[in-house]
Amino acid sequence: MKFICQKDDLMQGLSIASKASATRSPQPVLECVCVSADLSGVRLQCTDLQMGIETAVPAMVAEEGRVLLSARLLNEIVRKLPSGEVTVSVNASNRATISAGGSKTTLQGASAEDFPALPAVPEDAPIEIPQALLRDMIRQTGFAVSQEDTRPILMGIYLEVEEDTLTLVALDGFRLARRRGRLLSPAGRVTAVVSGHYFIEAGKILGDDEAPARLALSKTHLLLRTKGFTVIIRLLEGEYIKYRQLLPPSYAISTRVRCGELADCIDRASLMAREGKNNLLRFSIRKDKLSITSNSEMGEVYEEMDVETTGSDIDIAFNVRYITEAVKSIDEEQFLFQLNSNISPCVLVPTEGEDFLYLVLPVRTAG
Amino acid sequence: MKFICQKDDLMQGLSIASKASATRSPQPVLECVCVSADLSGVRLQCTDLQMGIETAVPAMVAEEGRVLLSARLLNEIVRKLPSGEVTVSVNASNRATISAGGSKTTLQGASAEDFPALPAVPEDAPIEIPQALLRDMIRQTGFAVSQEDTRPILMGIYLEVEEDTLTLVALDGFRLARRRGRLLSPAGRVTAVVSGHYFIEAGKILGDDEAPARLALSKTHLLLRTKGFTVIIRLLEGEYIKYRQLLPPSYAISTRVRCGELADCIDRASLMAREGKNNLLRFSIRKDKLSITSNSEMGEVYEEMDVETTGSDIDIAFNVRYITEAVKSIDEEQFLFQLNSNISPCVLVPTEGEDFLYLVLPVRTAG
Repeated sequence: MKFICQKDDLMQGLSIASKASATRSPQPVLECVCVSADLSGVRLQCTDLQMGIETAVPAMVAEEGRVLLSARLLNEIVRKLPSGEVTVSVNASNRATISAGGSKTTLQGASAEDFPALPAVPEDAPIEIPQALLRDMIRQTGFAVSQEDTRPILMGIYLEVEEDTLTLVALDGFRLARRRGRLLSPAGRVTAVVSGHYFIEAGKILGDDEAPARLALSKTHLLLRTKGFTVIIRLLEGEYIKYRQLLPPSYAISTRVRCGELADCIDRASLMAREGKNNLLRFSIRKDKLSITSNSEMGEVYEEMDVETTGSDIDIAFNVRYITEAVKSIDEEQFLFQLNSNISPCVLVPTEGEDFLYLVLPVRTAG
Repeated sequence: MKFICQKDDLMQGLSIASKASATRSPQPVLECVCVSADLSGVRLQCTDLQMGIETAVPAMVAEEGRVLLSARLLNEIVRKLPSGEVTVSVNASNRATISAGGSKTTLQGASAEDFPALPAVPEDAPIEIPQALLRDMIRQTGFAVSQEDTRPILMGIYLEVEEDTLTLVALDGFRLARRRGRLLSPAGRVTAVVSGHYFIEAGKILGDDEAPARLALSKTHLLLRTKGFTVIIRLLEGEYIKYRQLLPPSYAISTRVRCGELADCIDRASLMAREGKNNLLRFSIRKDKLSITSNSEMGEVYEEMDVETTGSDIDIAFNVRYITEAVKSIDEEQFLFQLNSNISPCVLVPTEGEDFLYLVLPVRTAG
């Protein structure tokens, strides 16, 4: 095998593909990147069997071939190379030579025979959405995925397509995050539960622009394809929670708040809540004022901000982490806090539409 | 006590002073910042008994007083405040209230009675040098300070003033770093050994400009004063090594190298040296070529660059860390590699003058 490419192209392809490589695996092939060169160009593949990523690297291929190389070492070698042309050649013993300028590195590789093929996912009914929107949607729900494997299905992100709308949902028994986005074209109805950990990792490599990302589903896998790469992620087995039943049908109290100001108040109040180990933020809503307090042995924080409320006054307490993560994931300037009582779910929604919904259970406090 | 100041001024003063606070100490006062307000303004002091730092904060003082507050918590509280005016008031029970806009935090403090006074250092014979130069000099020698307490004196940086020159020296038995800088005015002759760890920490808070830093010495302490802060550091007791005896009187081989190119070659070669756990870089100097090789079970790196050599060809090996740290600390575009044999010290010096000198012992290798 032999090809010539640009250092920056190779580095970018490697840094994306190797996100799917295992760091320490009993199967050494899973720590490798499979480099393939043929008439169509150079492809890089990594997989830890839960997720697989394939990237293409623009290259002049002089000799076809396939080889497995340590993903970690190849990344480090290429990253340190001078900018410009890089020549990669591999001999019959799978020993690769990577040359650029006065630098020449040899790296012992292995036969690509044992590298697991990425699962095929038919793309006959693709779902298309701008990649930056998908990235935000994953980030804005992923934080609510359960970290505990007592109910494995909650470690997934529920994905639902209906007509021209993609809905992502995550919940962990204390809070729920739902995010909706418009598809580039209608796509029928499908649902799946995608491994939260891997969907979040895939979200991080999506770009910050309107270029389309294509989703496709088989019975066992999700495919996510953009111009730069293809990701395959295992689906979780089982039925997802019927999450709609968890949403209150109506709310007695609605408070309009400015998101940035509330996030700052919560950030300051969280200091004493964490210091006191009670992790408790107490909200008091009074018509046009919202105050937040926290305390510990070391002291107290009192924060006050102007709001607009319809409904009665209320005192309610939240776990600092759950309310912080919900508020921080909101990109809007304003949103609505909707409540019924201090022992029933609180819901954060946009002032218009239903692009996002965050539900947080309050903490019952004495007195 | 009561004063009003700007959030950014208070934050800057705190972030500098608290570098001298202890993180976990059996004496809780050492984890505190001592806040003093009097007619001259507001001062912040921290000390862990090895190092003390005092900063001044521009403030309108309404009521004088002193209090000890948790350095960690006060830092976090102030950092999160909105920009603008901050009011700090402390009641008779040492409870502080920090208010800004709609935010009010109370923090329980303690009496300042038990806070240790910073040692006095007479400034009758000050040594003045541009602060950015001093900062660089500490950084460019500090890496060679010994990390092992078998010879405690080597954990210090040797400081020598002679006429208008400040010399800093550090060595650890495998390498030596010497850096010279011009004082703003002649200052007689003094020597001292300053705790390396604390001198390095103090160097990090020095600014990046030509403003003067003033040094003064007592028998037990170094004082370092700039416009923004005063640092007091304990001196180490004992005689420093007579380091001049370690420098070869002459060199048979001298190679002129480009610093950035060499640093890149070493960086790439270090990958396999570290991977192979032998940590060995082999240099081959041939008239107009310098090649560097390293190897491990996984592969080899070969790097080649153009140089200008006077003297015979030589093959010599270095520990990757020692040669890397020496080369990386050189800011010049070119420097000279000076050698006698592959079992005697190698010295890196400027092409002109003697602003810096790095000595590295080679590694003896079989064959």
